[in-house]
Amino acid sequence: MIQKKLEVRYQPFDKTTRVPPGTTLFSAAHWIGLPIDSTCGGRGTCGKCKVQVLEGGAEITTADRKQLRPGELEAGWRLSCQAKVYEDTTVSVPELLRVPKAATMGVNRLVLLDPNVRKVYVELTEPSLEDQRSDVERLRDALTAEGFDMKSDLRVLRTLPAILRAAEFKVTAVLGGDQLIAVEPDDTREQSYGVAFDLGTTTVVGTLMNLRTGMAEAVRSTLNGQAPFGADVISRISHGMQGDEAKDELREAIQRTMNGILAELYEAAGVDRNRLYEMVIVGNATMLHLLLGIDATPISMMPFTPAFREPLYLPARDVGLDIHPAGYVQTLPVIGAYVGADIVAGVIATGLAREDKLRVFVDVGTNGEIVLGSVKRVLCTAAPAGPAFEGSQIRCGMRATDGAIEGVTLTDHVELQVIGGDIPPKGICGSGLVDTVAQLRLAGLLDAGGKMRSREEVPEHPLSDRLITVDGVRGFLLAENVYLSQRDVRELQFGKGSIATGIKVLMDVMGVTAADLDEVLLGGSFGSYLNPESAKIIGLVPPVDVDRILSVGNTAGEGAKMSLLSFRERQVAFELPEKIEYVELSGRSDFNDSFVSVLAFPELESLR
Amino acid sequence: MIQKKLEVRYQPFDKTTRVPPGTTLFSAAHWIGLPIDSTCGGRGTCGKCKVQVLEGGAEITTADRKQLRPGELEAGWRLSCQAKVYEDTTVSVPELLRVPKAATMGVNRLVLLDPNVRKVYVELTEPSLEDQRSDVERLRDALTAEGFDMKSDLRVLRTLPAILRAAEFKVTAVLGGDQLIAVEPDDTREQSYGVAFDLGTTTVVGTLMNLRTGMAEAVRSTLNGQAPFGADVISRISHGMQGDEAKDELREAIQRTMNGILAELYEAAGVDRNRLYEMVIVGNATMLHLLLGIDATPISMMPFTPAFREPLYLPARDVGLDIHPAGYVQTLPVIGAYVGADIVAGVIATGLAREDKLRVFVDVGTNGEIVLGSVKRVLCTAAPAGPAFEGSQIRCGMRATDGAIEGVTLTDHVELQVIGGDIPPKGICGSGLVDTVAQLRLAGLLDAGGKMRSREEVPEHPLSDRLITVDGVRGFLLAENVYLSQRDVRELQFGKGSIATGIKVLMDVMGVTAADLDEVLLGGSFGSYLNPESAKIIGLVPPVDVDRILSVGNTAGEGAKMSLLSFRERQVAFELPEKIEYVELSGRSDFNDSFVSVLAFPELESLR
Repeated sequence: MIQKKLEVRYQPFDKTTRVPPGTTLFSAAHWIGLPIDSTCGGRGTCGKCKVQVLEGGAEITTADRKQLRPGELEAGWRLSCQAKVYEDTTVSVPELLRVPKAATMGVNRLVLLDPNVRKVYVELTEPSLEDQRSDVERLRDALTAEGFDMKSDLRVLRTLPAILRAAEFKVTAVLGGDQLIAVEPDDTREQSYGVAFDLGTTTVVGTLMNLRTGMAEAVRSTLNGQAPFGADVISRISHGMQGDEAKDELREAIQRTMNGILAELYEAAGVDRNRLYEMVIVGNATMLHLLLGIDATPISMMPFTPAFREPLYLPARDVGLDIHPAGYVQTLPVIGAYVGADIVAGVIATGLAREDKLRVFVDVGTNGEIVLGSVKRVLCTAAPAGPAFEGSQIRCGMRATDGAIEGVTLTDHVELQVIGGDIPPKGICGSGLVDTVAQLRLAGLLDAGGKMRSREEVPEHPLSDRLITVDGVRGFLLAENVYLSQRDVRELQFGKGSIATGIKVLMDVMGVTAADLDEVLLGGSFGSYLNPESAKIIGLVPPVDVDRILSVGNTAGEGAKMSLLSFRERQVAFELPEKIEYVELSGRSDFNDSFVSVLAFPELESLR
Repeated sequence: MIQKKLEVRYQPFDKTTRVPPGTTLFSAAHWIGLPIDSTCGGRGTCGKCKVQVLEGGAEITTADRKQLRPGELEAGWRLSCQAKVYEDTTVSVPELLRVPKAATMGVNRLVLLDPNVRKVYVELTEPSLEDQRSDVERLRDALTAEGFDMKSDLRVLRTLPAILRAAEFKVTAVLGGDQLIAVEPDDTREQSYGVAFDLGTTTVVGTLMNLRTGMAEAVRSTLNGQAPFGADVISRISHGMQGDEAKDELREAIQRTMNGILAELYEAAGVDRNRLYEMVIVGNATMLHLLLGIDATPISMMPFTPAFREPLYLPARDVGLDIHPAGYVQTLPVIGAYVGADIVAGVIATGLAREDKLRVFVDVGTNGEIVLGSVKRVLCTAAPAGPAFEGSQIRCGMRATDGAIEGVTLTDHVELQVIGGDIPPKGICGSGLVDTVAQLRLAGLLDAGGKMRSREEVPEHPLSDRLITVDGVRGFLLAENVYLSQRDVRELQFGKGSIATGIKVLMDVMGVTAADLDEVLLGGSFGSYLNPESAKIIGLVPPVDVDRILSVGNTAGEGAKMSLLSFRERQVAFELPEKIEYVELSGRSDFNDSFVSVLAFPELESLR
């Protein structure tokens, strides 16, 4: 009944991902940077995204029958945008698209390849006594003729005369918007790269994108180097409040992390740093402040104001990041102190503010960021959820690394899914915690008020020997030395209660009920690993049909990549802070009232 | 008959300048940074520029009689804009204007005080849960309400939250155009400074201007630190061609020179570096290229193209200049490889392109830059003049420093004006050279072809014993060990011939003759020291009435100051390259033809 995480392997790239059941082969591939061709945006009409299933399986859909020949169907070919996985699967992907005009990214979002960085090859007329235009004018005039504006840059100017003459005035101009980033000898249009960075408080992910093809060439992630200064944004800000040196420490730590990722990406993709012209960075408001060396103190204090919300386009050297020396950094805008550029990217990736469907998007973490809306109106808020979902403050909690229980099924015995495969479980990560609590509810071992049964209360239950008491506190034994305690349940109740209340406040403000919701999207580095059904059972999300609760992956990273590849998507992101209404929960009486009422778990009957 | 340089002293400032006879007390004061009050722009109608003559004298003019009371006239009060000096003079200047709405600068140019740098004091509403705008938005909204646009800056953002809160949200925003340069606690509007730099190949002059009052607070000049790498632009460029290290040497040398001047200016004016937000830099194209580290090689080679001509607005830190860390450098545009931003500034300072009068402006130096025109049409060119005018390549030549003969009068004896007063002359500087040749022509000791008389040819001449022969070459003895040789005359003939030809070519292209010229303006660091009558006698300038030949001072520096104080003047400067037609002399057959015909000196009769 509870869905396990499934493994999907893509050949010939030998890339693997773990996704919730029901994810399409197409989306799962995109999330790990394999852009399967598509021009229809996942509507099943272009037929370009077909893949061959080698192991596992996918049902034949109506779209498959229209687009594929009987022989192809028989050989296992399927449209990847329609094929949902319900078992571990291995597929073969035909050659990836080299120069896609469009790619499907995020949550079935069709993105036209139109990056802000453009390379223009020009053959300039050489100077003469009759034509003494300066080198810059010569270049600008040629670019203007091709329809491009150009603002010159001191660094480019310095070597422009030598480069023009060495290249006999045949050069490629690199523009970031209308900012001249480089002038390169000869035709280098084939080599154009950017990086999308998802700057998480815990984890930093960088994806090196080929701006010519729209393909991800390499992905690397690592822990945020600021971790020694605190696990969450508040402790990071507190560290920075110790003085300028502490602020510098924080800035340098994240710069080192990002430059380390960049170095790995260059090596992995075989890309020259000087061909990487632009990066798009998303992250919460605090992470962006700390990266840029901007005082973040007021974010941590009433009334919670960031120094800036606007998108910034900054020389990469000013931010201390090692891309092309005249390259640029683009940050996406933030909506409020606790609804950051990662959420803006998520809205882009989900298309939430563009479609008719009414959806709620929840990024679960220490803070639960919630966006509710459709093309008509969009509301957002941030609900403080505490550390439970990230596995901290939990008796046997741990981060989602090897040995962590990430999935749990309770029948007459305990079935565990452990990260790393057949190794002894060492603890419980966030998704395992949610699963355990949900399964205990289903197994009748946890009441709606959150109280765990004791062995004495349910002596006949097949799992009653798992009910233990440690230091006078009840618990449920998952494995040797790994158990869920009654206190852990309380932690989770507070966390889910806060997020659930945030969702409820937004629905109340908009005047809608759960019945009006078309979809619930679980995103973020943690949220996308949550089992949708468990999320529903513990009452984290509104009681909608479980098919409508979707894990949408790393929406922040997807939105960053989309903004890197598409100038239009970036513009949409820029406008979101104007469009999205922020609802502040602090000091709202309905938040406090609701909060108490949603601490309890839903009655199971109410969910049927 | 020949006019000597005159000394004018201004009290109570105890500032002194040396100017050609006929200069007004008002202009002379402005050239050394004493902005005598005026609202009429030197038309003698506002009466605000009155000064009291303490020593020397100035005739009473009609304007004086209208504006001043008889008692004032008797006490020596004169309108400084009307009072021309014809003897050494000391005047007392009433308190200088504190906040002028307008100042007269350059050549009687009325400049409205409207600097590009603006300081705006705002009292922001403090953030609350109901108003969670970011700090930047809070500031921007307040500035917008006052009519100002604002682009934020990373450096300002870094400390904005702390500054706003420490100052209880009462701050002064500093804008350079729409670029945010600083946010300062409290009301600092009174403290706003900029620097105008005239970046000469030989001499660098910096003037620290109070942007609030329009007054010059301090002026400093020094030799260009690039001098060890060559005296002229070609040798500097040649040095830079040795490689990147040599280019760096050049850039660092001029940066050191300018930063040295800045340090002196701060100390002299008692101004904090952090209150100096913007600098306007003018100079020839090569100097601007070398300062910015831009490859200047093509300037020195056919077909003579600069890397850029456009005005650049650059962060001062990128140029390595020590003003406010987020301050800006504005360079004025250049017209061509050899008609630089100094000439653009000169056109601004003289108003040449704005007035009905047809004028020719000549900046005499190693290159003679020539601008001919009026509001209707403007032409310009550059004529290679060789080093004669700067005192090099002359047998007893020297720069215009102590001991240099700067003025000569020949009657029945030799009268010398020596820089430094009563000290033995050591050599001849450019203006002394021109004077000597002109005086020899008047004394009948030099024929129109440029041949010097020998003692044998004119035994009766009172100066015949001054006619000498050194190593078989004729010469004229000015003082012990200081003489003008026949070869020096030839050098000067080539130099003045080149410039005169340039002027003729421009007049031909425009279809005008000397009779059409309203004025001839001699400018630049050397040209303004030239005796107008001598310039006419040697045929450097067209044969117009000597009253119409004006020394106009350091027009480059004046234009830079005007561009610093007036955004409108700066805009006019930006548009000049579009408006001014550049005439290239290289390869023009009429240049070569004319050149030969103007090598000779004019017949004296033709000048009467």
